Amino acid sequence: MKLTIERAALLKSLAHVQSVVERRTTIPILSNVKLDGRSGRLSLNATDMDLDILETVPADIARPGATTAPAHTLFEIVRKLPEGSQVEIEVREEDGQLTLRSGRSKFSLACLPVEDFPVLSEGELPFRFTLTATELKALIDRTRFAISTEETRYYLNGIYLHAAAGEAGPTLRAVATDGHRLARAEVTLPEGAAGIPGVIIPRKTVAEVRKLIDETEGEITVALSETKLKFAFADAELTSKLIDGTFPDYERVIPTDNDKVLDVDCKSFAQAVDRVSAISSEKSRAIKLSLVTGTATLSASSPESGSAVEEIEASYDASPLEIGFNSRYLLDILGQIEGDTARFAMADAASPTVVREVADGSAIYVLMPMRV
Amino acid sequence: MKLTIERAALLKSLAHVQSVVERRTTIPILSNVKLDGRSGRLSLNATDMDLDILETVPADIARPGATTAPAHTLFEIVRKLPEGSQVEIEVREEDGQLTLRSGRSKFSLACLPVEDFPVLSEGELPFRFTLTATELKALIDRTRFAISTEETRYYLNGIYLHAAAGEAGPTLRAVATDGHRLARAEVTLPEGAAGIPGVIIPRKTVAEVRKLIDETEGEITVALSETKLKFAFADAELTSKLIDGTFPDYERVIPTDNDKVLDVDCKSFAQAVDRVSAISSEKSRAIKLSLVTGTATLSASSPESGSAVEEIEASYDASPLEIGFNSRYLLDILGQIEGDTARFAMADAASPTVVREVADGSAIYVLMPMRV
Repeated sequence: MKLTIERAALLKSLAHVQSVVERRTTIPILSNVKLDGRSGRLSLNATDMDLDILETVPADIARPGATTAPAHTLFEIVRKLPEGSQVEIEVREEDGQLTLRSGRSKFSLACLPVEDFPVLSEGELPFRFTLTATELKALIDRTRFAISTEETRYYLNGIYLHAAAGEAGPTLRAVATDGHRLARAEVTLPEGAAGIPGVIIPRKTVAEVRKLIDETEGEITVALSETKLKFAFADAELTSKLIDGTFPDYERVIPTDNDKVLDVDCKSFAQAVDRVSAISSEKSRAIKLSLVTGTATLSASSPESGSAVEEIEASYDASPLEIGFNSRYLLDILGQIEGDTARFAMADAASPTVVREVADGSAIYVLMPMRV
Repeated sequence: MKLTIERAALLKSLAHVQSVVERRTTIPILSNVKLDGRSGRLSLNATDMDLDILETVPADIARPGATTAPAHTLFEIVRKLPEGSQVEIEVREEDGQLTLRSGRSKFSLACLPVEDFPVLSEGELPFRFTLTATELKALIDRTRFAISTEETRYYLNGIYLHAAAGEAGPTLRAVATDGHRLARAEVTLPEGAAGIPGVIIPRKTVAEVRKLIDETEGEITVALSETKLKFAFADAELTSKLIDGTFPDYERVIPTDNDKVLDVDCKSFAQAVDRVSAISSEKSRAIKLSLVTGTATLSASSPESGSAVEEIEASYDASPLEIGFNSRYLLDILGQIEGDTARFAMADAASPTVVREVADGSAIYVLMPMRV
């Protein structure tokens, strides 16, 4: 293999693939990126055996060929090359040594045989549909913060993607929960997604696909089976195993008849929660919301620090209620609401509260209260 | 005590004083800041018993008085208040409770009696001189990176400040070393500093005074004795204990007759070192400099990654030499050289190398080679 490529293009792709490569791995070849140059393009492939990324970039191929080289080291080298430089990569077929030249710099890297690089077979992916970058971003951003980090509840360690009947017709839904809060976001069901199985996309896959979205503007094709899922961008493909588990029946925990309704200005309410929580104890992060007709008050107290109280502008005319929340969870939810007004629908101080933007039903959040 | 103060002014001072307060302390009152309002100003005082900061800000004092309140909590609260707001602080004399009001927010903080707040007596400070912010910044920035972090060598855990005979007349010198590298910076000896004792300023004091310099433009008065030192800014004073130890006779380790001289463009050399070090092992960070008349080459190799080599533009006409350095230490030094050309004066591969800017003798660096 011998090729020349622009540093900027190579760096961008290496940044994506090295992010999939685990820092500590016991299998040496999993530290490597597979480089394959042919037909005017260099393809870069990396995997951790659960998630596989394949990206291609234009390159000037003098001699086609393939090898695998240490992904993080290669990324570090290319990152430190001067902006605007050209990079020449050559692999000697006799001993498999990779040489990288740019300007006056020359690097030699130990390679491993391309035959040993694992292939994450995607198998059959019978379902296929497309989403815009904006849609996929909305599904992810509005739910990923609620993904559980408890390894024992592995079936909650991802986003549950499935087709569902929404208020305004069939939807594609993303749901995540950690047992304390739940986030549900939806977009209009794309063509081809009607019969998809419900799948749980692992946290790491969610993080990597989210990074790629930031650099794309076009459509993203999603293809999936019951065990694998592939996101296809213009020049990159992410293939991921899915979490083999059953996502709980989340609809059951979304209350529908909570009748104590509080409307608040989302931004100023979030600022008040943030301020008042300066007092709440580091551990519990609890704050109390006290509601009587026409008045809402946030308060917090901790034995070490003291107490805080702030009256907020709110519209509330149900019976009086005192309810406690984890302030961090509240801020997570408020941070995802894009409109002006957040609506809290509550039943009592011990039952789940539903939060949504008053005019936007495409995302709803469920929050368990805390005893305060 | 009852007073009103602008949030911005209070926040700035609290940021300074809370930085001196240790997060974990077994003595409760050391978590507090002493607030004292009188004569149109609020003074804020915090200490860790080794370092004391006293800052004053204009305030509208309705009723003079003093108390102590949790520094980090107070800082968090004020930080989260809206920009441009006014803050009202009131202490009820009967129970010592502090109330902070701003807009619709109200915070109550548990206080501790002002009589219990420790006073770091500065004692007699017989020596006194002034430095410009630029001078003090130069003394600190060019040396602090070399401060040792080994607690057993406590006498190296700071910057050694003293008067010395420089090449161009009497100077005030700052020196720091960790045994692997040494940094020496100097400015013209200010009036009043002629007879000062050599003092070792602790790392934390160096860090705190450095932050204050960034926000000042005027002169800084330094007053000191053999055991204490005070930096006086326009509205703030830092008083610090000094490290009770003997700084080694550093002059002995600065070679004066190294005759192998290499001149390099500082910036491009630093970039080459950074690039080549992408290959050097995570642990040793070693890179090799190979010199023959007219040519200088940087190289590195590691059993895991491979090798790197880069020829650099340099002027060298002494006998051939191969010498190894810790690339991180090299970059630390090159990062502090402001001129264009760095001059390396070497003797052999095992003896200390002297580095300086070719036209600027106000800072010199000594670097121990590594075996490569």
